[in-house]
Amino acid sequence: MARVVVDVMPKPEILDPQGQAVAGALPRMGFAGVREVRQGKHFELDIDDSVDDETLHRIAGTLLANPVIEDWRVTRVSE
Amino acid sequence: MARVVVDVMPKPEILDPQGQAVAGALPRMGFAGVREVRQGKHFELDIDDSVDDETLHRIAGTLLANPVIEDWRVTRVSE
Repeated sequence: MARVVVDVMPKPEILDPQGQAVAGALPRMGFAGVREVRQGKHFELDIDDSVDDETLHRIAGTLLANPVIEDWRVTRVSE
Repeated sequence: MARVVVDVMPKPEILDPQGQAVAGALPRMGFAGVREVRQGKHFELDIDDSVDDETLHRIAGTLLANPVIEDWRVTRVSE
């Protein structure tokens, strides 16, 4: 068993209204000093040791992220 | 300027229908070996150096996460 983290973010050229909403709310709530916020998705997968990196990238690119508008990063964490 | 990552996940005792949907879809799409999937949110913040860790945790706990049902982790990344 291994733990894998997949972070999915909107590509830099894609608008991110959720992140913008957070960034806009912060000063109104009294928090200064945050320049930009971008929001994405964070997946934690528990996988069998037989699952290789190529399979993980196919899973991320077909089921977890939309490759047209999102980038993703697959990280194996030791747990 | 510093880059901060905040990962927000449903607490372990909270059902995660999005993660379950992904976990259920994987075998149907031909991917074996994934035992469990949990889905959360991933935020990337660009902040001024003046923003301290205590402020970051207050931002995470009031605006990015719902402390009743979610846990979060704040990480400063070197960028």
